[in-house]
Amino acid sequence: MADEIGVGLVGYAFMGAAHSQAWRTVHHAFDVPLTPRRVVLCGRDAAAAEAAAAKLGWAAFETDWRRVVDDDEVGLVDICTPGDTHAEIALAALDAGKHVLCEKPLANTVAEAEAMADAAAAAAERGVRSMVAFNYRRVPALAFARSLVAQGRLGVIRHVRAQYLQDWIVDPAFPLVWRLQKDKAGSGALGDLGAHLVDLAQFLTGSRISGVSAVTETFVRERPLVTSSSGLAASAGASLGEVTVDDAALFTARFASGALGSFEATRFAAGRKNSMRIEVNGSAGSLAFDFEAMNELHFHDHTLDPADAGFRRILVTEPAHPYVGAWWPPGHGLGYEHTFTHEVRDFLVALGEGSDPAPSFADGLRVQRVLDAVERSAAADSAWTVVPN
Amino acid sequence: MADEIGVGLVGYAFMGAAHSQAWRTVHHAFDVPLTPRRVVLCGRDAAAAEAAAAKLGWAAFETDWRRVVDDDEVGLVDICTPGDTHAEIALAALDAGKHVLCEKPLANTVAEAEAMADAAAAAAERGVRSMVAFNYRRVPALAFARSLVAQGRLGVIRHVRAQYLQDWIVDPAFPLVWRLQKDKAGSGALGDLGAHLVDLAQFLTGSRISGVSAVTETFVRERPLVTSSSGLAASAGASLGEVTVDDAALFTARFASGALGSFEATRFAAGRKNSMRIEVNGSAGSLAFDFEAMNELHFHDHTLDPADAGFRRILVTEPAHPYVGAWWPPGHGLGYEHTFTHEVRDFLVALGEGSDPAPSFADGLRVQRVLDAVERSAAADSAWTVVPN
Amino acid sequence: MADEIGVGLVGYAFMGAAHSQAWRTVHHAFDVPLTPRRVVLCGRDAAAAEAAAAKLGWAAFETDWRRVVDDDEVGLVDICTPGDTHAEIALAALDAGKHVLCEKPLANTVAEAEAMADAAAAAAERGVRSMVAFNYRRVPALAFARSLVAQGRLGVIRHVRAQYLQDWIVDPAFPLVWRLQKDKAGSGALGDLGAHLVDLAQFLTGSRISGVSAVTETFVRERPLVTSSSGLAASAGASLGEVTVDDAALFTARFASGALGSFEATRFAAGRKNSMRIEVNGSAGSLAFDFEAMNELHFHDHTLDPADAGFRRILVTEPAHPYVGAWWPPGHGLGYEHTFTHEVRDFLVALGEGSDPAPSFADGLRVQRVLDAVERSAAADSAWTVVPN
Amino acid sequence: MADEIGVGLVGYAFMGAAHSQAWRTVHHAFDVPLTPRRVVLCGRDAAAAEAAAAKLGWAAFETDWRRVVDDDEVGLVDICTPGDTHAEIALAALDAGKHVLCEKPLANTVAEAEAMADAAAAAAERGVRSMVAFNYRRVPALAFARSLVAQGRLGVIRHVRAQYLQDWIVDPAFPLVWRLQKDKAGSGALGDLGAHLVDLAQFLTGSRISGVSAVTETFVRERPLVTSSSGLAASAGASLGEVTVDDAALFTARFASGALGSFEATRFAAGRKNSMRIEVNGSAGSLAFDFEAMNELHFHDHTLDPADAGFRRILVTEPAHPYVGAWWPPGHGLGYEHTFTHEVRDFLVALGEGSDPAPSFADGLRVQRVLDAVERSAAADSAWTVVPN
Repeated sequence: MADEIGVGLVGYAFMGAAHSQAWRTVHHAFDVPLTPRRVVLCGRDAAAAEAAAAKLGWAAFETDWRRVVDDDEVGLVDICTPGDTHAEIALAALDAGKHVLCEKPLANTVAEAEAMADAAAAAAERGVRSMVAFNYRRVPALAFARSLVAQGRLGVIRHVRAQYLQDWIVDPAFPLVWRLQKDKAGSGALGDLGAHLVDLAQFLTGSRISGVSAVTETFVRERPLVTSSSGLAASAGASLGEVTVDDAALFTARFASGALGSFEATRFAAGRKNSMRIEVNGSAGSLAFDFEAMNELHFHDHTLDPADAGFRRILVTEPAHPYVGAWWPPGHGLGYEHTFTHEVRDFLVALGEGSDPAPSFADGLRVQRVLDAVERSAAADSAWTVVPN
Repeated sequence: MADEIGVGLVGYAFMGAAHSQAWRTVHHAFDVPLTPRRVVLCGRDAAAAEAAAAKLGWAAFETDWRRVVDDDEVGLVDICTPGDTHAEIALAALDAGKHVLCEKPLANTVAEAEAMADAAAAAAERGVRSMVAFNYRRVPALAFARSLVAQGRLGVIRHVRAQYLQDWIVDPAFPLVWRLQKDKAGSGALGDLGAHLVDLAQFLTGSRISGVSAVTETFVRERPLVTSSSGLAASAGASLGEVTVDDAALFTARFASGALGSFEATRFAAGRKNSMRIEVNGSAGSLAFDFEAMNELHFHDHTLDPADAGFRRILVTEPAHPYVGAWWPPGHGLGYEHTFTHEVRDFLVALGEGSDPAPSFADGLRVQRVLDAVERSAAADSAWTVVPN
Repeated sequence: MADEIGVGLVGYAFMGAAHSQAWRTVHHAFDVPLTPRRVVLCGRDAAAAEAAAAKLGWAAFETDWRRVVDDDEVGLVDICTPGDTHAEIALAALDAGKHVLCEKPLANTVAEAEAMADAAAAAAERGVRSMVAFNYRRVPALAFARSLVAQGRLGVIRHVRAQYLQDWIVDPAFPLVWRLQKDKAGSGALGDLGAHLVDLAQFLTGSRISGVSAVTETFVRERPLVTSSSGLAASAGASLGEVTVDDAALFTARFASGALGSFEATRFAAGRKNSMRIEVNGSAGSLAFDFEAMNELHFHDHTLDPADAGFRRILVTEPAHPYVGAWWPPGHGLGYEHTFTHEVRDFLVALGEGSDPAPSFADGLRVQRVLDAVERSAAADSAWTVVPN
Repeated sequence: MADEIGVGLVGYAFMGAAHSQAWRTVHHAFDVPLTPRRVVLCGRDAAAAEAAAAKLGWAAFETDWRRVVDDDEVGLVDICTPGDTHAEIALAALDAGKHVLCEKPLANTVAEAEAMADAAAAAAERGVRSMVAFNYRRVPALAFARSLVAQGRLGVIRHVRAQYLQDWIVDPAFPLVWRLQKDKAGSGALGDLGAHLVDLAQFLTGSRISGVSAVTETFVRERPLVTSSSGLAASAGASLGEVTVDDAALFTARFASGALGSFEATRFAAGRKNSMRIEVNGSAGSLAFDFEAMNELHFHDHTLDPADAGFRRILVTEPAHPYVGAWWPPGHGLGYEHTFTHEVRDFLVALGEGSDPAPSFADGLRVQRVLDAVERSAAADSAWTVVPN
C-alpha cells in the first residue's frame, strides 16, 4: 500500500482544473510510490474557492495561500496562479519544506526566476523537490520524440521550427483579460505560448538556445475592460483599456549545438486553435508534431533508401511508448489532460526515488532567460542578443 | 448537493477500467443530478478482483455478480463482462430494480437480445432504466456529426462507408484469447467492431439497415492456447486451438431510407490500430471521420460555390460542440476514455430526468439483428438477407 | 535517330485530348525506340474533328474511322470512343495489321471482349500488338506499389479496399450525357470507375478476383435530355429521359489468393472529385493511395518495431521511382496526364522490343468478366457469383 | 489562325527542359493569340546543345547567346541560365527589341536587377515586354489564393509564414555544383528558394516587405569538386572546394501593411523534397499551401460559426479555378510543369493584348532588394534592415 502525500492547490481556473484531474487520476492509472491526497484548494474568493473545491474534489478550501503553505497536512504545493505570484508562493513553500510544482512560465522576470532556481537548488539539498509544469514534455509523442533524438536517430540537428498558433483574440471585441496585462502575465503570446516552444526545443534537442533575434507586435492595442469573469469566460463592458503584452512574438535562434531555430507564438492565427507545431531536421532524420493531432508523431528516417522513405505517421499509442502502457490499447488516443497526469506521475516517482524531477526550476530559468533575450532583442531593433548561460 | 447513486461494476478488464475512469470523473467534469458512488467491483478471481477494486477505486469487491445485483447499496449495475453473460446478469439486475448499463454487443444472440429488450421495456414502465454502451456515439465529433445530419446539412443520404480496422492478431502466433472464441464472444471482428459500425451508421443517418449481403473469413484458423492472462496481455503455450470466430466481416447494405452502405470490420489491417472510419455522402454534403484522429470531423458543404468547397477539418473542440464545454479550451483534444465519461453523464442525466437514455436495449437489439443477418447471409453464399424490423 | 510510327486517333473528347498530350510529349521526355507521328484524328462531325485536329496537334482529320484503319501512314490506332464502338474498330484495325491502343473498359460486353482478346492473341502471333488503356497502372505511385507487393514487402495479402468516388452527377439537373446511357457506355459508375478498380486490384495483388457479391443503384432515374454538347460540357433541355446505367456499384469479392476485397464505385460521393482510393493490407505491410494526392503512396512496414512503425507518406517523385527519372527533381509532382504519357511510352518500348505490352486485351477481358459477374450478382439479389477464369 | 512568335531558349538544363515543355504545350491547351515556334536552343557545349535541341524539340541550336538575340526569327528570348548571366543577356535582348522571359532570381545583385528593371521599363515604352519567371504564381492553388485575398476573404492580414524546405544537399558528400557557388548563383537557398517565398508573399498579400532581420548559415563548408555533370546529375572527385553560399536562410519581416512575416529557406530539411509552404492568417480567414500537395489549398473562413469552421481542403481542380478549365475534369490534378505552361500562356496573352505581363522586372527587383536586405542583416548581427522601396 502506497504512502500518501497531501497536496495543496493554489489557483483553480483552467490550470487548477487540469491539475485536479491529474491528482484525482494518477494513482488509478499508474503505480506510484505515493498516493496523492487532495487536502486543500486555495483561491482569493471564498465562495468561488469553496465551489471549486467541491467540484474539483478537494477536501477543504482556503483563501490565503500562506495557510496552505503552513498546513501540516500539505506536503506538496501546486501553484496554478498567474505568473506574478509564482515566486512569492514558491519561495515560501520551499522554505517551509514543501515540494513545489509550479506552472509555467516559472516567473515573470529573470530575477524572480533566478531566486526560485536558487531556492530550489538549496531545497534539493534538504530533499525538498521542485518542478516546473511544462506539461507538453509529457505528451507521449514528444517524450518519444526526445528518445529518438537521444538515440541519435536524427543525427546532427540542423533546424528547429517551432510555432504555437492560437486564435482566441482575433476579434478586437474580445475583452482585456489578465493574460493581456503585463503586470499579471509578464508577457503575452511570448510567455504563454512561446515558453512552451522554448522549453520543448531545448528538451528535444538536448541543446540550449544561445542567441536570438526577435520581433513582437500588438495588433489590437485597446480592448474592452472585463466586467465579470468565470472560469475561462469573461464579460466585457464598453470602456477600453490598453493591451500591455505582445499579441505575437517571432524570433530566429541559434542553439549551442550549431542548429538554427525559427520560433513563432501568436494568438492571431485564425483557424489554429492550439496548434503547437514543432519540426526538427537532422542529418539522419526529421520529426514533425502538431498538438492538434497530439497522438501522432511524424518521423522521417533519412538513412533509408530514398525510394522507400517518407514521413511516417506513428500513432504514439503503443504499450512501448512513454506513459501509454498505463492506458488503453493501440489506437485509442489520449487527450490534453493526460499530460498533467503524466507530469504528476513523474513528480511522485521522483519523490519516491529521492531524485530531482525534470524540468527543474533551473530549466524554467533557462527558458526565462530566452524569453528575456527575445524581449530585449525586439526592443533593440532585432539586434542579435546572446542568452546568458 | 447532488444525491448519490451506488454503482456495482461487473468485470474489470479493459472495459471495466474504462468505465471506472468514467465513474470516478463524471461529476468532476459535468453537473450531474446524481453523484456516482463506486460501491463494488465484481470478478470471479478473488485476488484479482480485490486488486482491481483497489486500483480502480471501488470500495469493495465481490466474486459473484448475484451479490452485486442483490446489494442494497447498488442502484445501478454496469456490465463489462464478455457477451455470453450479458443477458443473465442484465435480466437479473432489471428484475431486482437496478438500472443497467451493458457493454456492447448487447448479447451473443438475437434471442438473448430480444429477452433483454423486452425486460428493459418492462423495467422502464417501473422507472428502471437501461442503456447499451455504444460509447462511440459520445465522441464529440460523432455526436456533432449526428446533429449536422439531423439539421439536414447533408440532404438526402446516398452512401454510408464504414470500416473498423485493427491489426492486433495479424501475427499467427497471437494466442487464442476469449475474443477469438465463439462461445464467449459470440462472433469476432463482426460483433466486436462491426457492432459499433452498425450502431453508428443507424445513429448518424437516423435510418435502419434493412438488408445485407455479407462475406466473412477466418484467415488464421488455429492459434496457440492461452496459458495465462493479465489485463490485455496473454501468454501462449505450444498447443493450438481452433479459432471459432471471424477475423474479418464485410457486407453491403441498404438502409430503409434508400441509402447504400458498405461495411467492413477486420483485425487484419496491418498498421491500422483503431481506425473506425465512417463516411457519409448526401445530396447536400458529406462527412468523414476516423477514430485515430478522434477530435476531427471532416465536413463538405455541397451547397457552396464549387470553387470554394472542400472537406473542412473541424476540430471538434469548441465549447458549442457536444460535451466539450465541460473540458478544455479549443484545440485541447479529448481522448478515448472521455467517451465513457460522456456515456455515464448522459445516463445520469436521464436518471435525473426520469427519461430513457439512448442507445436503448431496443437499439442494441436492432444492431444484433443486423449482425445476425450478416452471419446468415455469409452462410448462404452472400444471399441478400432482409433484417427484421 | 528513332524511327517513326504513324498514329491515328479515333475520338477527340476527354480521352482524345489526354492521349494527344501523351503522343505530343512522350519522345521529349523519354528515350523511345519509335517517335510517334500524329497522322490523323477521326471524329464523326467534320467541323469539330477539323478543329480538334488543329488544336490537339494532328496533321489531318477524318470522319470515318475505317479510313484511319486503312491509312498506310498509320501504324497504330488509338481508340478513344465510347465503349459500344471499341470492338468493331479494334477488330478491323488488328485485322489490318495495325497496333491498337484501346480505351477502357475494353468493351461493353464479355462477348465483345472475348472476340477482342482472341483477335489480339492472333495478331500478336503476327507481331501486331495491343494494349488496353488502364492508365492508372502508370501512376508512378501505383507502379511503385506493385513493385513493393511483388518484392513481398506486404507478405500475404489479406484485404483490398478499393473505392472510386466522384460527385459530378449529384445534382438531379445534370443532363443525360452518353455516359448515363447503357447502349453507349455499357454501364455507369461500374464500367467507368469500377473497371479501373478491378484492373488495379488484380494488377497490384497479382491475383485475380474469383467471385463477387454486388448491389447497384440508380439514385436519379430520370434526367434532362442533352440539347448540345461540347467537350466535357453539355446543355440540357426541359424534357427528361431515363438513366439506364448504375449511379453506384458496390461489391465484396474474393481473390484466388484468398484475400478479401471491398469495392465501391459511385458518382454520388459529394465532395470527392476523383478519389480513386485503394488500400491493401498484408501480413507484412500495408499500402494506401488516393488519386486526389497522386504523388503520394502511404506504406506501412509491419516488420518494424511497433513503436517505430506507421504509414509513411512516400513522395513518389524520386529518380528511382517508376517513370519519374524522365521528369523533374524530387518533390516536383506529376499530374493526371502523365499517366497517358507513361502508357504510350510503355507501348512504344514494347513495340521496339517486339514484346506484348500490358495490360493486354486478355487483361481487359478479365476485368470485363468481373464487371459482368457484378451485374449478374446485383440482378440476383447479391448471390455469390463466380468469375470465370 | 494564330500568328506565330519565334522563341529562342538560352540554357537547357532543368529550367530549359521545363520551359521547353511549356512552349511545346501551351497552344494545345490554351487559346493563345500567338503560337510559339521553337526556333533555337542555345548552350555553350555544341554537342550537348545539339542533343538538347533534338530532345526538347527545338529547330536549331547555337552556342553563342548573342546569335540568338540577333536572330530575326526570334521574337522572344527565354533566359534559363544561372543568375550571373541574366543581366547581360536580358539587356542585349531588350535592346534588340526582343521580348524577354527571364528565370528567377532576376539577377545576382541589386545593381544588375536595377539595370534590368530600367531597361524593361524603357523597352515597354517601345512595346517590348518582359517577365520574370516566378512560376509558382501560376500554381492554380496560389493564383486562387491570391484571388481570395484580393476579394477580402482573409480580412486584414496579420501573419505570413513561408518556408521552402528541400534536402538534396544533406549529405556532405554531395558535390560542389554551380548552385553552391556564389559567383554563379549569387546566393544559396536564399536566392534559389527564398526568392520564390518573397515573391509569393508579396504577390499573395499585395503588400511589400518593408524590413527584415536575418540569419544565414552554411552547415557544410567544403564539398567535393565536380568532375563531370549531366543534367541534374553530377559526379564528384576527391578534392574539396569551398561552399560560398548559404545552406539556409531565416528571416523575420514586416510588411508595409503591418503584417508580420516569418521566412525560412533551406536545403537541409531531411525528408522535405520540395516543400514550399506558405500560410497566411488574416482577421477574416486563413490560407495554407504546400507545394508537395500542389493541387490543394487549405482555407479557413473565420466568419463562419466556430462550431462549423475549419480549414477546408479545396481541390483546386475546378473549371472555375485559374488555368484549370483548359485541362482535365475536377480531381484530375496538374503537376509541376503546368506552372510553366501557365506562365508562357500569360506572357503570350499579354503580348496579344499589348500589355505588360506580371511579374515584371520591377517585381523581380523588389524581390532582389529583399534578398539583399536579408544578406545585409545577416552580416550585421541580424540588425533590422529596411528594404528600400
